[in-house]
Amino acid sequence: MAGGTWFTEDQREGLELSFKVKETLVSKHTPYQKLDIYDTYKYGILLTLDDLVMTTEKDEFVYHELIAHVPLFSHQHPQEVLIIGGGDGGTAREIVKHPCITRIDMVEIDEQVVVMSKQYMPFLAKDLTNPKVHLYFQDGVEFVKNTISTYDVIIIDSTDPIGPGEGLLNTEFYRNCANILKAGGILVSQAESLYNNPDCVKQVFSKLRNVFPVVSAYAGTIPTYPAGLWCFAFCCNTPEPLNFFDEARFDRLQLALRYYNKGIHKACFALPEFAKRLCQGEG
Amino acid sequence: MAGGTWFTEDQREGLELSFKVKETLVSKHTPYQKLDIYDTYKYGILLTLDDLVMTTEKDEFVYHELIAHVPLFSHQHPQEVLIIGGGDGGTAREIVKHPCITRIDMVEIDEQVVVMSKQYMPFLAKDLTNPKVHLYFQDGVEFVKNTISTYDVIIIDSTDPIGPGEGLLNTEFYRNCANILKAGGILVSQAESLYNNPDCVKQVFSKLRNVFPVVSAYAGTIPTYPAGLWCFAFCCNTPEPLNFFDEARFDRLQLALRYYNKGIHKACFALPEFAKRLCQGEG
Repeated sequence: MAGGTWFTEDQREGLELSFKVKETLVSKHTPYQKLDIYDTYKYGILLTLDDLVMTTEKDEFVYHELIAHVPLFSHQHPQEVLIIGGGDGGTAREIVKHPCITRIDMVEIDEQVVVMSKQYMPFLAKDLTNPKVHLYFQDGVEFVKNTISTYDVIIIDSTDPIGPGEGLLNTEFYRNCANILKAGGILVSQAESLYNNPDCVKQVFSKLRNVFPVVSAYAGTIPTYPAGLWCFAFCCNTPEPLNFFDEARFDRLQLALRYYNKGIHKACFALPEFAKRLCQGEG
Repeated sequence: MAGGTWFTEDQREGLELSFKVKETLVSKHTPYQKLDIYDTYKYGILLTLDDLVMTTEKDEFVYHELIAHVPLFSHQHPQEVLIIGGGDGGTAREIVKHPCITRIDMVEIDEQVVVMSKQYMPFLAKDLTNPKVHLYFQDGVEFVKNTISTYDVIIIDSTDPIGPGEGLLNTEFYRNCANILKAGGILVSQAESLYNNPDCVKQVFSKLRNVFPVVSAYAGTIPTYPAGLWCFAFCCNTPEPLNFFDEARFDRLQLALRYYNKGIHKACFALPEFAKRLCQGEG
């Protein structure tokens, strides 16, 4: 490896991705996990949790646009949104771009992720102070079990299902989410790497199918996530949201986006053959 | 970095991808380039040229299925195909799956790529002995200038436009290709990394537009290529092939593919917003 300081992500089975670091901005242990923030040459600010890449300044737009705009433009009239996780603020930032949204409840277990994001990644966290955004620093598993609120869209923007994110890959958790989803509502969850974590992808979809009658999958290419092709689960109680795209709202809003567009909205549901089989439980 | 032997690809600007190596199978200098073949833990057999990843056993299917089947199923009745480059044999392997193909001319500058692929990567090279495949070990630039053959489909399956592949990113080369493309024909070229090589992508498309009236772009996610999202240029003299998909032929052939399918055929042309602008010369 060339000189200087590097952050290396161990992607298992003998694969490593290394970022040359200009400066280490944060390196600490929160009550839940190890949290580091680096300023890198290639990808700008990089946040890692337990030494896994969570987000980078240069490519965060892919993940956040896909996890937010696909469900929001598939919903007839989204108003109230729940985010589980999402502490860096990127998902909330995309959601507040939709004026029809009246309330965003965001449940992040680790307050330090929000505090550090506000300080070092304002490009992500800038809308966490929006009055529509309500932060709850607690375990998402408990929140969805106990809340009396209901939502049009629920977004599970979690870490990998190890460490603090473990309880989120669970049929009971998904059932509690379904219970607080309004009629016509949509739940979207990040669902791991199609090439790298096939077993995990299968588990997510199999457990979601225990709860939701309609479960589909979409994907996008995120350069700094292992093997690039990242999966999202799209769940609802009726098939209508799968076939609906609010093109008029999209045209009216004129959002300045870098990944999501009209073509992507439909095309992201067309998965490569191996991935299609995997999400259908045949892989 | 953990112990053992590793191959590290320098992806520039402080990004490195490292593969743990079981065994180095080949390490030599051909008359044209440095050629190495490794047996890796994560991706199986790995071929590098000038220390850049060309193909791996585990993910080569993505690139080869996309570069071959997208043009072949977009053509009304493809029979004669020219491959420029493609020495590992993966593109020819996909093309011979189409019984309508009567002749494949493959022009590879470096005979050692073919020799080594036959010996160490038979999963790629196995169809290079098919009687429909005719190998020419010469510079593709010279071949397209001098040949009197014409083709239904031309596939530019080149290395990066540095070293021996440099002359292939050139308006004159593209014009000579256009001259040997039959009416209704399609030219497809690999067109580099949308995230990592934006300047190169722009150059490819701008030069192709000097020559072809219809130039479109499609993409796929290749885990071991820099930043994953890989671009292909799709060129023709009339817009028909862009809108044509031979679904009946696809259904009849029942190919056992892992990436390409009906959904992907259309969806791969829907590029992320930044990539769309880049290929249109607006990025």
